Amino acid sequence: MPSIDHLGIAVQSIAEARKLYESLGLAVVREETVEHERVRTALIPAGDARIELLEPTTPDSPVGRFLAKRGEGLHHIALHVDDISAALETLKARGARLISEDIQTGAGGHLYFFVHPSSAGGVLLEICQDPISDV
Amino acid sequence: MPSIDHLGIAVQSIAEARKLYESLGLAVVREETVEHERVRTALIPAGDARIELLEPTTPDSPVGRFLAKRGEGLHHIALHVDDISAALETLKARGARLISEDIQTGAGGHLYFFVHPSSAGGVLLEICQDPISDV
Repeated sequence: MPSIDHLGIAVQSIAEARKLYESLGLAVVREETVEHERVRTALIPAGDARIELLEPTTPDSPVGRFLAKRGEGLHHIALHVDDISAALETLKARGARLISEDIQTGAGGHLYFFVHPSSAGGVLLEICQDPISDV
Repeated sequence: MPSIDHLGIAVQSIAEARKLYESLGLAVVREETVEHERVRTALIPAGDARIELLEPTTPDSPVGRFLAKRGEGLHHIALHVDDISAALETLKARGARLISEDIQTGAGGHLYFFVHPSSAGGVLLEICQDPISDV
């Protein structure tokens, strides 16, 4: 069964944004910079899902442009599935608009693709096979 | 430890929006109309969290106004906490901007309050003590 893997939230400053979650008893377990996306990320487990704070390293990065256009807020929702190839074929067969037609491989072998917000209730939806982290 | 309880997603049509999630193997387990909020809701469990689709019953309802202003998309994120009174006091002490200063009681005794997006990384953040559903 699919489950919510993580919520990506675009913020101006991880140092600032993390304070709210920490005040509620949550903790950042990993911070890293994803060079090819020019973004710094902080991972905050909450139940069996995770909050992923996203801070751009340059204004012209994807998250930097998102912030300039829309301001801080939810950037994407990631659903974990057991069979990402089947999910991709199902969505293609339904005519869903995808950000790319292929499955991408991220850090640590994490497999993913993105469904365009116009096909997912206004939400940029990541479908991933491996959880973003084992934490 | 706090956990993600649900993600509220504002949509024009639950009938349309649910199809994507159903095609991925998820299921709507409850639909109901919350009269005082003038909203229809559909609850979709995904892991230990839930996706809550929100369809306004009138354009001048809170979710109807959200749709008119921002279009479909994430409306709020709800974090479940073990002690909502302590969470409220903690956030007040930090000077967080709240939608209301008091804890509200929803359907089935569900306790909640909302943190304004300006204090939560651009996300309307619901803090709740009881999960929105036992499903």
